[in-house]
Amino acid sequence: MRSVSIFGATGSVGISALELIAHEPDRWSVDVLTANSSAGDLAAQAKACGARLAVVADEGAYGDLQAALAGTDIECAAGTAALEEAARRPVDVTLAAIVGAAGLMPTLRAVERGGIIAIANKEALVCAGPLVTAAARDSGAKLLPVDSEHNAIFQVFDFETPESVSRIILTASGGPFRTKSLDEMRAMTPAQAVAHPVWSMGAKISVDSATLMNKGLEMIEAARLFPVRADQIDVIVHPQSIVHSFVEYVDGSVLAQLGSPDMKTPIAYAMAYPKRIKTPVAPLDLIAAARLEFEEPDPVRFPALRLAREAMVADGTAPVSLNAANEVAVAAFLEDRLAFLDIAAAVDHVMARMSTCAVATLGDIFACDAEARRIAKDFVSARGR
Amino acid sequence: MRSVSIFGATGSVGISALELIAHEPDRWSVDVLTANSSAGDLAAQAKACGARLAVVADEGAYGDLQAALAGTDIECAAGTAALEEAARRPVDVTLAAIVGAAGLMPTLRAVERGGIIAIANKEALVCAGPLVTAAARDSGAKLLPVDSEHNAIFQVFDFETPESVSRIILTASGGPFRTKSLDEMRAMTPAQAVAHPVWSMGAKISVDSATLMNKGLEMIEAARLFPVRADQIDVIVHPQSIVHSFVEYVDGSVLAQLGSPDMKTPIAYAMAYPKRIKTPVAPLDLIAAARLEFEEPDPVRFPALRLAREAMVADGTAPVSLNAANEVAVAAFLEDRLAFLDIAAAVDHVMARMSTCAVATLGDIFACDAEARRIAKDFVSARGR
Repeated sequence: MRSVSIFGATGSVGISALELIAHEPDRWSVDVLTANSSAGDLAAQAKACGARLAVVADEGAYGDLQAALAGTDIECAAGTAALEEAARRPVDVTLAAIVGAAGLMPTLRAVERGGIIAIANKEALVCAGPLVTAAARDSGAKLLPVDSEHNAIFQVFDFETPESVSRIILTASGGPFRTKSLDEMRAMTPAQAVAHPVWSMGAKISVDSATLMNKGLEMIEAARLFPVRADQIDVIVHPQSIVHSFVEYVDGSVLAQLGSPDMKTPIAYAMAYPKRIKTPVAPLDLIAAARLEFEEPDPVRFPALRLAREAMVADGTAPVSLNAANEVAVAAFLEDRLAFLDIAAAVDHVMARMSTCAVATLGDIFACDAEARRIAKDFVSARGR
Repeated sequence: MRSVSIFGATGSVGISALELIAHEPDRWSVDVLTANSSAGDLAAQAKACGARLAVVADEGAYGDLQAALAGTDIECAAGTAALEEAARRPVDVTLAAIVGAAGLMPTLRAVERGGIIAIANKEALVCAGPLVTAAARDSGAKLLPVDSEHNAIFQVFDFETPESVSRIILTASGGPFRTKSLDEMRAMTPAQAVAHPVWSMGAKISVDSATLMNKGLEMIEAARLFPVRADQIDVIVHPQSIVHSFVEYVDGSVLAQLGSPDMKTPIAYAMAYPKRIKTPVAPLDLIAAARLEFEEPDPVRFPALRLAREAMVADGTAPVSLNAANEVAVAAFLEDRLAFLDIAAAVDHVMARMSTCAVATLGDIFACDAEARRIAKDFVSARGR
C-alpha cells in the first residue's frame, strides 16, 4: 500500500489520478487532496477516497470546505501556508498537479521532503527547474514526469548509461494549425486555436499547442529532467499523437513509448513507479490507427520553437522570461486583444529586452517574471487592438 | 576489453559483427572465428581481427585453412568436434551465428559454458529451445537475441516485472506477397518469393518471409526468450520494417524499438550488453520515413502463422516438426518441385501426422526432425511436379 497526496485534485490530472485510485483502492492510502477554490468538489473527492486532509488555497473557500466535510473525520485547512505545510507531510508519492505559478511552492516543499514526486506542474520545471532539481538531489526525491512526452522519454531513457543516448525527440501533434498557411494563421481566432485535434485541454495550453510554445516549454522541461545537452533535444511533428516521444541511442536504436492519448497511463506510471499497474485505459489499437506520420516542424510558421530553444540554451532566468511573456500574450490573445501571430512576436520582443541571470532563489524567479510581464503588457498595449 | 568468439563468422551476421569490431578494435579481443568451409575468407578475417583460433566445420577445408594461416600464430582446427571444443573456450561473448541445424551443438556448448550468448541461430531456440534455456539457467548464461524483432523486445521488456507485460507484438514486413491475392500467390515463382522488400537475405529465409513462416518461427523463439504465455504473443504487419517490435504493458504503455533495417544495431546491442556502443549504422530518419503503417496479417493467405501458433502452443517436439517440414517444403519450392501455397500445405500435412512429445535430449529432436522430413518429402513427391 502506497500513501499519496494530490496537489490539484480537482483539475484534469487530479481527477484522472483519483480514478486510478478508485480502480484499485487497496493499493493506495490518500493523505492530502488540495484544490484552488472548488470546495464542494474537493470535499466529495476526499470523502470518496478516504483522504485525511483537504486543503483549499483560496481562504475564501474555507467555510464551504468546512461545511462540506462536517461530520467526517477529514481535516481541512486553507491558504497558501497550509498548502505548503501539507506538502511537507511525509507520503510515498506526491502528485504535483496544481496548474501555474501557484503550484511552485507546494511542489518545491514536496521535493525538499523527498519521496516520489509525480510532476505535472510545468512552471516548477520551466521556471524553477534549477531549484527543483537541486532540492531533489539534496532530499533524494525522485522526479517522475507526468506530461505524456516526458513520461514516454523516462520510460525508455537508460539512466545507467546516459552517454549512450544521442538524442531525445519530443513528438508534437502540430496543433490545430499544422496545415494552415501563415496567412490563414494571421486571422485565427481564440475559438479556432483552442480546438485541439487530439487532446482535450484548457484554453491556455490549447493556444500553446497551436503556437507550438507548449512543445518549446517541454523542450526546456526535458533539459531539466534528462541528462542531455540542449542540442540533443529535438521536436518532430506527429499528427496522430500515438508515439509520445523517442530516445535515440548511439547504436542506432530508437526507443519509443506509444499509447492511447489518455493521461491515466503516464499518471499511473509515475504513481506506481517502478511497478506498473492496470489502468482503465483502452489498449492501443495499432491496426485501427493504421498509420503514424512524421514531419519536420516549420520554423517559419512556428517561431515559438526557436524562441524556446534560445531560452533553453541561455538557461538561468531566460525560461522564466519566456514563460511570463507567453502567459501575458496568450491571455491577451484569448481576450481578443492580440493577433495569433503576435503571441510569438510578444515573446520575441520580451526576450530581446530581458537580460539572463542565474537562478539562485525563488526571488530571482519572481523578479524576472514580474519584469517580463511588464514588458509583455506594454507590447500588448502598443500592438493590441 | 571484452573477449568474443564468433561461430559463423563468414555469414552476414558474422561479417557485420566483425565490422563492429573493426570499428572499435580496442574494445574487443577476438578468440575464435568459425566457418563452414570458406577457409580463405575465414583466414583473412582471423588475420584482420587478430583471432587466436580459426575453425572450419568441413574437414575437407582444413588444408586450405592451414595454408592460408601459415606463418601466423593463429591456431587452426577442423570438424564438428573441434567446433564444439572451441565453443567451450571461455569468452565474455559468444556470437552464435551458424545458420541451420549445424549451429545447434556449438550453441548448446557455449550456453553450457556461460557468459553472454548473442544468439542468431534460429534452430537453437525453435527446435532445442527447452534444452538451451535449461542449460542457460544452469550455467547462468545470458541469452541475448540478435534477430531484430527479439532484440527489439529485449530492449523494452521489463524483466523485473514480467507480470506487467500484457502482450508482445512482433512486427512483420508482410513479405513480397503482402498485397497479392491468393490467386496471384498460387503462381508465384522462387525468383518472386526471394525479392524481399526491405531486408536482403538468403533464399530460404526470403521464402519464409513470403509465407510469413519466418514470423511464425519468431513467435516460437519469442515464447522461449520471454516470460510470457503463448496467447500473449502477437504479430502485426508493418511494411516499412522500421518498428522492430512492441511490448504492451498493463498500464496502457506500448514500448517499441525502431531503427534502420541494419543488423549491426541488434548485433552491437547483444555484443556490448548492457552497454551500448557506437555503430556505423545510419541514424533513423523518421522524417524521411514519413509514415509507419500497420495492418492485420491475413490468416487466409498466410496460414503459416496459424500453423506456427499451434506448434508454439503444443510445444515439445511440435516446433521441431514444423521447422523440419518447412525446410523440406521450402527447398522443394526453390527447386520448383512444389507450388508456393503448397509450402504451408506440406507443413499442415506433416503437423497433422506427427505426435508431439517432450524434448528431454537432443536425440528427441533429431528423431522428430528425421520423421517430419520423411513425411514432408513423401508429401512433396505426391504433390510435386
